[in-house]
Amino acid sequence: MKKNNTFQEIAKQLLAAKSVLIYPHVNMDGDAMGSGTAMCRALRSLGKESYVLIEDDIARNLQFLDEGYCTRNQDVMENPEVSLCLDCGDMSRFPKRKDKFLEGKVTICIDHHRTSQPFCDFNYIDPGVAATGELIYQLLLAMDAPKDRQTANALFAAISTDTGNFQHSNTTKQSHMIVADLYDWGVEANMVSREIYNRVRLERIRIQNRALQNMEIFAGGQAAMAYVDGRMLLETGAGMDETEGTVDQLKSIDGVEIAVFVKSDWPMDRSEEPSAPWLALPEKVKISMRAKSWSNVAAIAEKLGGGGHIKAAGCTLNMPLKDALPLIKKEVEDALL
Amino acid sequence: MKKNNTFQEIAKQLLAAKSVLIYPHVNMDGDAMGSGTAMCRALRSLGKESYVLIEDDIARNLQFLDEGYCTRNQDVMENPEVSLCLDCGDMSRFPKRKDKFLEGKVTICIDHHRTSQPFCDFNYIDPGVAATGELIYQLLLAMDAPKDRQTANALFAAISTDTGNFQHSNTTKQSHMIVADLYDWGVEANMVSREIYNRVRLERIRIQNRALQNMEIFAGGQAAMAYVDGRMLLETGAGMDETEGTVDQLKSIDGVEIAVFVKSDWPMDRSEEPSAPWLALPEKVKISMRAKSWSNVAAIAEKLGGGGHIKAAGCTLNMPLKDALPLIKKEVEDALL
Repeated sequence: MKKNNTFQEIAKQLLAAKSVLIYPHVNMDGDAMGSGTAMCRALRSLGKESYVLIEDDIARNLQFLDEGYCTRNQDVMENPEVSLCLDCGDMSRFPKRKDKFLEGKVTICIDHHRTSQPFCDFNYIDPGVAATGELIYQLLLAMDAPKDRQTANALFAAISTDTGNFQHSNTTKQSHMIVADLYDWGVEANMVSREIYNRVRLERIRIQNRALQNMEIFAGGQAAMAYVDGRMLLETGAGMDETEGTVDQLKSIDGVEIAVFVKSDWPMDRSEEPSAPWLALPEKVKISMRAKSWSNVAAIAEKLGGGGHIKAAGCTLNMPLKDALPLIKKEVEDALL
Repeated sequence: MKKNNTFQEIAKQLLAAKSVLIYPHVNMDGDAMGSGTAMCRALRSLGKESYVLIEDDIARNLQFLDEGYCTRNQDVMENPEVSLCLDCGDMSRFPKRKDKFLEGKVTICIDHHRTSQPFCDFNYIDPGVAATGELIYQLLLAMDAPKDRQTANALFAAISTDTGNFQHSNTTKQSHMIVADLYDWGVEANMVSREIYNRVRLERIRIQNRALQNMEIFAGGQAAMAYVDGRMLLETGAGMDETEGTVDQLKSIDGVEIAVFVKSDWPMDRSEEPSAPWLALPEKVKISMRAKSWSNVAAIAEKLGGGGHIKAAGCTLNMPLKDALPLIKKEVEDALL
């Protein structure tokens, strides 16, 4: 198995190259986007040709970080000397760019995921850091890259999103030390936060609102459950992905130990509608569960054929929504009472 | 006018005293509660008698910080040597405790509010810091107080809440440097965050949900408005204070430049109800406005007899809700279009 390199070894490779193509994972989050654009900007400042090569859309709340760095055009650079993948530990995380990645004369991987294994010529994988952005910061120091405001903003976006604004347990002393230093670079933390959190689609507000309207509190106030069905998506214009976060809102309720969020493409009310969009889809429900402190939702998910972690687990049930809700409710009650 | 002292001068006073009574402001927020309990714990660790004297209830999501420090019993200590007020710049912020405060042989004030003026024997007022907790941290260092986990948790609660989890523009390099150091004290940032944000009253979720149901988007998507009326409070069991945060949710919508939240104790539908609770109250509406980036809501508020800051302003209108909504809508449209 390949092993980790030092920041100095990797910096040397980057400084020696004339051209570097950067590969963040698909469905970029703040860490991938912030790390990628910070590195791209630094490389260009150092006189190199560099782009962030992507294969899908940039989330609208992260587009402010793209000052001409990102492209989906694989021909933007011919034969880049270095292929650098960020925040991903294997090539399945950039499937449509895999062949292009392997064109690089040197391949480098910088990542912080626990499951990642070194697979490139040079690797720095540290699951102990909260964000890949923290590793990029160290690497930029090793490269003696310019410490400017835009780079600081991109690194702040990376670190603040992956630490849940410094609330998650992955946050370390180093996370704060790095951000403190970014203030010397001129970071605009408030601007970055506003860009990231003040571009919520109206449809997202509407679908989460609709879900909370059917919220049920049970098990003596220890459990909260809500669902989204196909008709609610149709009526609000929201995508199912925009229901993300609803389960956390259920969990935030005082006294609630287990939060359950149920998603179904089919509607609760299955009245005949020959042209309904869900008719082409299988009738099943996806269940997400969260435990606040002492309970084990992985055990509940496993009983229902699913799995996950003690505090965050899920399962899929091949049945109509109206049958799934009482079933999951009973299992949660059994676990709590 | 009295001037600021040094941390060393104030530390000397505290170290020389046998008994210190601590006065946070009424309606304690995370900064007042965190600063007060951190200081109380430190003083007790140093062998002094100390309590945090309060005059109202502790918010349920901050009660975890009270490990026997807080009391409403003004007789808990007779003739305390030092009266120390925190996070408040004048005695109107602890009105029922004013006489007791003046009993202290020495009075000290530690605060970060812009409007505060030194009024005690010893003062440290710095509007440049994000939280009083940052000043307490410096003072504890000057006192050579023990650096333990519980003190760190209290200081983290103070700093993280007053900086909006390090997103507000008051956050500085020093805020992060202090929190980095608190990791060496053993801070449990994730536990503190969970306690603070995972004790939301069900009634709060319900009233905010009800308000979003009447949300109106206008001015070509640049404005969002919602209201809460007396009937919605009655039906959900929520207090009007639990609508706090709704205006920020309206502002978070992509494309929205001005968010308007309207509060009325009287209902929109004023059908005859001889026993309705609002009949004893004046019929008026309170309007809160927020600007996202370029607009000036203070100007709108001033036109309607109110005032505030450019990005956060408000006014009160002595009219029924059904008349106030179109009026405010027109003013916002005029400002945006």
